[in-house]
Amino acid sequence: MTLKELQSAVKRHKLDAYIVTRSNMFIGQDLLDSENPLPELTGFNGSAGTLVVTPDKAFLSVDGRYEIQAARQTDPDKINIVCERGNPLIQCLNKLFEGKAAKVGFNAFTNSIQSVEHLRRRFPNISFMPDASEIFANNRCNSPCRVFEHKIEFCGIDRNEKISNICKQIGLSGCDAYLFTAADSVSWLLNVRSDALPDTPLVRAYALLDKDGRVTLFGDGLNFDFATRDFDIEPMGRLPKILKTYKNKTVGFDAETTPYLFCELFAGHRINEKPLEDFCQSAKAEKNPVEIGGIEAAHLRDGVAMVRFLHWLSDNWQGKTELDIVKKLHDFRARGENYWSESFGTIAASGQNGAVVHYRPTKETNQKLAEASLLLLDSGAQYFDGTTDITRTVALGTPTPEMCDNFTLVLKAHIALASQKFLKGTDGMSLDKIARSPMWNEGKDYKHGTGHGVGCFLNVHEGPQNMGMYGSSRPLKENMILSVEPGYYREGAYGIRIENLVRVVKCEQVDFTDDFLEFKILTLCPVDKLLINKYLMTSGEISWLNNYHKQVYERLSPFLTSDEKIWLKDACSPL
Amino acid sequence: MTLKELQSAVKRHKLDAYIVTRSNMFIGQDLLDSENPLPELTGFNGSAGTLVVTPDKAFLSVDGRYEIQAARQTDPDKINIVCERGNPLIQCLNKLFEGKAAKVGFNAFTNSIQSVEHLRRRFPNISFMPDASEIFANNRCNSPCRVFEHKIEFCGIDRNEKISNICKQIGLSGCDAYLFTAADSVSWLLNVRSDALPDTPLVRAYALLDKDGRVTLFGDGLNFDFATRDFDIEPMGRLPKILKTYKNKTVGFDAETTPYLFCELFAGHRINEKPLEDFCQSAKAEKNPVEIGGIEAAHLRDGVAMVRFLHWLSDNWQGKTELDIVKKLHDFRARGENYWSESFGTIAASGQNGAVVHYRPTKETNQKLAEASLLLLDSGAQYFDGTTDITRTVALGTPTPEMCDNFTLVLKAHIALASQKFLKGTDGMSLDKIARSPMWNEGKDYKHGTGHGVGCFLNVHEGPQNMGMYGSSRPLKENMILSVEPGYYREGAYGIRIENLVRVVKCEQVDFTDDFLEFKILTLCPVDKLLINKYLMTSGEISWLNNYHKQVYERLSPFLTSDEKIWLKDACSPL
Repeated sequence: MTLKELQSAVKRHKLDAYIVTRSNMFIGQDLLDSENPLPELTGFNGSAGTLVVTPDKAFLSVDGRYEIQAARQTDPDKINIVCERGNPLIQCLNKLFEGKAAKVGFNAFTNSIQSVEHLRRRFPNISFMPDASEIFANNRCNSPCRVFEHKIEFCGIDRNEKISNICKQIGLSGCDAYLFTAADSVSWLLNVRSDALPDTPLVRAYALLDKDGRVTLFGDGLNFDFATRDFDIEPMGRLPKILKTYKNKTVGFDAETTPYLFCELFAGHRINEKPLEDFCQSAKAEKNPVEIGGIEAAHLRDGVAMVRFLHWLSDNWQGKTELDIVKKLHDFRARGENYWSESFGTIAASGQNGAVVHYRPTKETNQKLAEASLLLLDSGAQYFDGTTDITRTVALGTPTPEMCDNFTLVLKAHIALASQKFLKGTDGMSLDKIARSPMWNEGKDYKHGTGHGVGCFLNVHEGPQNMGMYGSSRPLKENMILSVEPGYYREGAYGIRIENLVRVVKCEQVDFTDDFLEFKILTLCPVDKLLINKYLMTSGEISWLNNYHKQVYERLSPFLTSDEKIWLKDACSPL
Repeated sequence: MTLKELQSAVKRHKLDAYIVTRSNMFIGQDLLDSENPLPELTGFNGSAGTLVVTPDKAFLSVDGRYEIQAARQTDPDKINIVCERGNPLIQCLNKLFEGKAAKVGFNAFTNSIQSVEHLRRRFPNISFMPDASEIFANNRCNSPCRVFEHKIEFCGIDRNEKISNICKQIGLSGCDAYLFTAADSVSWLLNVRSDALPDTPLVRAYALLDKDGRVTLFGDGLNFDFATRDFDIEPMGRLPKILKTYKNKTVGFDAETTPYLFCELFAGHRINEKPLEDFCQSAKAEKNPVEIGGIEAAHLRDGVAMVRFLHWLSDNWQGKTELDIVKKLHDFRARGENYWSESFGTIAASGQNGAVVHYRPTKETNQKLAEASLLLLDSGAQYFDGTTDITRTVALGTPTPEMCDNFTLVLKAHIALASQKFLKGTDGMSLDKIARSPMWNEGKDYKHGTGHGVGCFLNVHEGPQNMGMYGSSRPLKENMILSVEPGYYREGAYGIRIENLVRVVKCEQVDFTDDFLEFKILTLCPVDKLLINKYLMTSGEISWLNNYHKQVYERLSPFLTSDEKIWLKDACSPL
């Protein structure tokens, strides 16, 4: 659908505006390009954004990561970019309709119950009109895919044990059943994965669990390569009918991931609806020992691939383009045991492209690596035993002193957080500020969170754990996996980001009480010393880096050729 | 009422428990000792705590500041102390009634609508029974007091201007009127103060504002020493009758400070109740230029008194007791211009008493200052032009190296936060962690928030601004006043705290964008250098302290005798 066609539809339905979210019925999960309505409507293909269309205008609200990219990709005569701190959609609606009555449509499949309730509370004068079919197609996900088991050697806990634990919680919560609508919860719970999406092995399905242990999975286009009696499988279209049998029973659901459509379905079937946080989300976030072993092994392999690539890059970058880099890095990774796919489209951003926080090179933007520039490389892989995500920024040729000073500042921010010990109960949003502290004291900042949760052969961005800039946040718990990734971006010049994944562990220091937690680094790959201004570092920071590099060399060198070893030895030599 | 009498009443009313809060009908504000039910029931006289009484047991829930004091003051055979992270009252009810049905009574005058709603949501199986008279007396506040004007030279904005601004907001919010139930809001709005409480010049009254500007003040025992036509004055008992005239009209109120009783009153009178944050709270928190000038002048006077006292102390501490210290410090302060009262009971805690976070010396606990001990001194004053609050920890005789290391650690925590620059929108709870960061990295912590808001000739603890340990928190805004007060407490040995008040200002550094804020220090008083282990400090921290001391000397010395000047010169000499 084009913007013009949508605007006609808005007029025809006598709406004052229509909200288009970049989402499908698996809200908050990744989607296929074909399911994303925004590129056709606006040209913008970033991974987050919301469009508000009025009969004659259009407002694309994006967060700080996408400010530059959205401006580049859209026509300023047709699309107004909104990028403000806080929730840009709310600010956009506020500007359009502040205090005024209005009728605003939204897709009942792709907007969660929680997000709609939030809008209704925030804008009591606006009538938000659910639209289940007319303006947009349903955004059902039915492309055919292969569904396979995530083997016990990787996932660590049998699905029947998981089901029995979760059912216990469903019973205790006073529900007769719970509808899991988050695809990563369902994939985790049933130890299943699929090839539906290019970078994330999610099975895009809902699951209905009765408190007595019966499980039904709902999805379309799913071709199972194994047989099981642990759960029933039904097409998505059967869900309303099956829900009918829960009349007068209590069904739990997570309002954050459940499409608004279900509000009407529950009411229509006289089901007692009980909004309750998805039990799988927190269970999944605290990794079990088998997962931890796998994640560590995956990071070892990923580190070997990164080091081989960086060694190759050091001699071969001249004349290469960003897309050459993406391909080469992919080739090194794909040789690794248990490799399944990349965990997201590699960001190989040279020079000024590095300042576009979530830049991905395309044929149109692809450029040659230039002398005296920075290459920002954010990439990762899905291995059967773990998911990786790493960013390194490397100097091509001789960097300027300014680049080095800013790189060192980002490194100081990284070390401040990575080495911070903290009390149990501390939330991620507070820890985010520990990384920002040294940057803020220099008047600098980065417009993205400092860390996100990471799944195990699942979403590379997973909740509930995170270390975000604003909003509320949860206490970090033992064995959660998070990224630590402060950055600095000079528009039109370069971008810097240093990202490692870490695991939350009990603080190892013997004289500390049990109440203290700390981070254990998973990622193994040297930080480019050519970019460090040693005189800006404290002795504590220098020994942190030297210790890290020592560990990187010790762990990775057994798997390298002698040439690669020599390169790594130098890259990891003490500062 | 004794505990035994209350337990009989609980039985007689067939309740499973009764909640006793340390509060009167001005919820969250200070109260007279005679209005505090806890000492008679339990022996505990701390400034925060909640008692849950069952027919045969009693649980006193306190926060970390009062854990030691509560244990000291209560009979362990009768009272169980509950002190856990998070909300101790909730944990206490959870232990008693988890998942079970129960009938729990509470006083409808001294519990806010919000706190009761919160309990109801948290414990759906418990019936919370409002009790307006039977078990406890009404806790009306009617002790006679003198009410006087807070002059325009101190408060800066005429009451009619304030009323007109607030009425505009009432109209915009869709209310016909707003009932202000927070005594500090009413005192601020009408520029009135009283001598009802020993340490806080609050006028304990409610105010009903019509959107068209009519103001009625409700209170008992108020003897006005001035006449005004700006507002009507009525006894509290008239409020229900006057509210009756708002039938079918919309009345706003703050659910956090409004007694539960009003829920029933609004419903009974068919008033459309609209819970809305008290407009005066945020207006009051962002100080105006006249207030800022006054607050700075008050801090100058307070600094002079503190330095005179510390000079006296250095030669005279031997043989003195904690109560001698309290009296002497009071005498120095009381000589200052515009002095009204202390802003809270002085904490003069010697040796192990310092580890009791909110210790106040009494005849029973009073002890002599000992050689090689620490004296923790937390005190402040109400001046007509500003409120002060300062903590200094001083060495008596020669401190141990351990004391010095821990003092230095607290100083590093203080400097980290006091010198932190931060983006607009940053919340206080995140900033709290900036102070904790260096302490956590040594496995140490303090069980209280790092900072609280401070009023202007009003509450020494005021909201909405704060820098607390847990819970949600707001963005700090320009011209808010807060304390910065990290500490360290070794039970049975000593306590350390270093507290200055600061004002939030735009960041002064020229190359920073307008988005950055920082703290400007208000408090002028040297930090005891005898307790600093210089080798644990960075050069940045040392120059922060030297700059601060330079400023202290320059600002205070013109007001001192030559002896005092010599002492201060030495106390402020560079490290």
